[in-house]
Amino acid sequence: MSEQPTVAHDVVRRAGDGPFLEVTGLAAYVRLGLFGLIGAHTWDAPDLASAQRMVTIGLRVGEQQRALLAIGAAHGVEPVALMAPFAGVLDSFEARTAESTWWEGLLKGVVGHGVASDLCRLLARGLPSGLAAEVGAAMAYHDDDERSTAIIRAGVDADERLASRLALWGRRVVGESLSLSQTLLVTRPSFGVLAQAVTPSDADTDDGDAAPAGAVAWVLSELTAEHTRRMDRMGLAA
Amino acid sequence: MSEQPTVAHDVVRRAGDGPFLEVTGLAAYVRLGLFGLIGAHTWDAPDLASAQRMVTIGLRVGEQQRALLAIGAAHGVEPVALMAPFAGVLDSFEARTAESTWWEGLLKGVVGHGVASDLCRLLARGLPSGLAAEVGAAMAYHDDDERSTAIIRAGVDADERLASRLALWGRRVVGESLSLSQTLLVTRPSFGVLAQAVTPSDADTDDGDAAPAGAVAWVLSELTAEHTRRMDRMGLAA
Repeated sequence: MSEQPTVAHDVVRRAGDGPFLEVTGLAAYVRLGLFGLIGAHTWDAPDLASAQRMVTIGLRVGEQQRALLAIGAAHGVEPVALMAPFAGVLDSFEARTAESTWWEGLLKGVVGHGVASDLCRLLARGLPSGLAAEVGAAMAYHDDDERSTAIIRAGVDADERLASRLALWGRRVVGESLSLSQTLLVTRPSFGVLAQAVTPSDADTDDGDAAPAGAVAWVLSELTAEHTRRMDRMGLAA
Repeated sequence: MSEQPTVAHDVVRRAGDGPFLEVTGLAAYVRLGLFGLIGAHTWDAPDLASAQRMVTIGLRVGEQQRALLAIGAAHGVEPVALMAPFAGVLDSFEARTAESTWWEGLLKGVVGHGVASDLCRLLARGLPSGLAAEVGAAMAYHDDDERSTAIIRAGVDADERLASRLALWGRRVVGESLSLSQTLLVTRPSFGVLAQAVTPSDADTDDGDAAPAGAVAWVLSELTAEHTRRMDRMGLAA
């Protein structure tokens, strides 16, 4: 945390539990959406092994959400109240990224919810260190063969046409994800403050707004870079 | 277990792990289907609280499935191999019970998968007692406010038209569920043997077949009675 500017941290501290609970609430809500997406693609999976992987992945997503909701509850906020400020924020994203195949649904989860989770992780780093660690632990990412990324990598390696179709689809989904992230950063004062707290000072053009353009741009560039690395891991051109 | 005929138990014992693994595999496969159904109805839930309940229920279903798969693994059978004999057995049921509302989806889970789970629990009672306890523990049913039944009860109590529509829907779903159960009992020799083992001797008209008509009829009547009790708990006419 040492690289973060002390001044911005003071702002976060003065804001009390607000930013902390908002990041936790968004992270929990994103996982609710991902759980639904993964669940919906259990039954239409191409084979039993893939269907079972959906259960495994969905279970992990649900368990992460449970951990996030427990954090909220420990701070006196019940699950629905914690997520309520974000109810509906994924609707427009969902409407613009209606998948037409199982593979597209899977990649939507990886890319779309991947960006949203990265956003939450990044903002959480701007919280006072105890709270940052609490939220960070609940969102820890473990890479293994049962991950959606590994499933897509295997599918893409075996089918060149799938690879090019999914690369295109990934670009569409990431565009919508970044647009949603930008909206959240600009419209939620807490997120603007956290974005400033995590933005390196040379990129921070603080002009007193809740979400200075420099911080928003820096966060979006970080999300884009992480997306590119993720696409690379799957053998897809970003 | 003392009420079960010793003769039938000997048959089960001679059949080795077959019946045990088949019941476990069917129970795990049914949960895979239920996980998908619940997951698919997270996103279209009427409100955030209902959506969150879907996650909670789905998580519980997934955890039960994990316990069942662990039983298989402990006996040397990997998850996919354990469920493979049942891949597709729910397809016809699914095709004939395509829900048109969130409520219908929820009730389909309660009724359809309820009957299938009852079938597994009932057949498990026919296993040698150690194995019966193992499978039974993994399928334990805990009634509480977060259950689908409680959600339906609340909806039905508040809306008379919903109650009559769901009562009709429940009859359609249970018909398909019982038909599927009958097919499983008649076509899977292991299940026929277990059905005989749990059927009280006065109802058992064993004529040497794998699935004597008396045992099948008795099991179906038990499933129907349990269904009726479940509908009663939800305030629905069976």
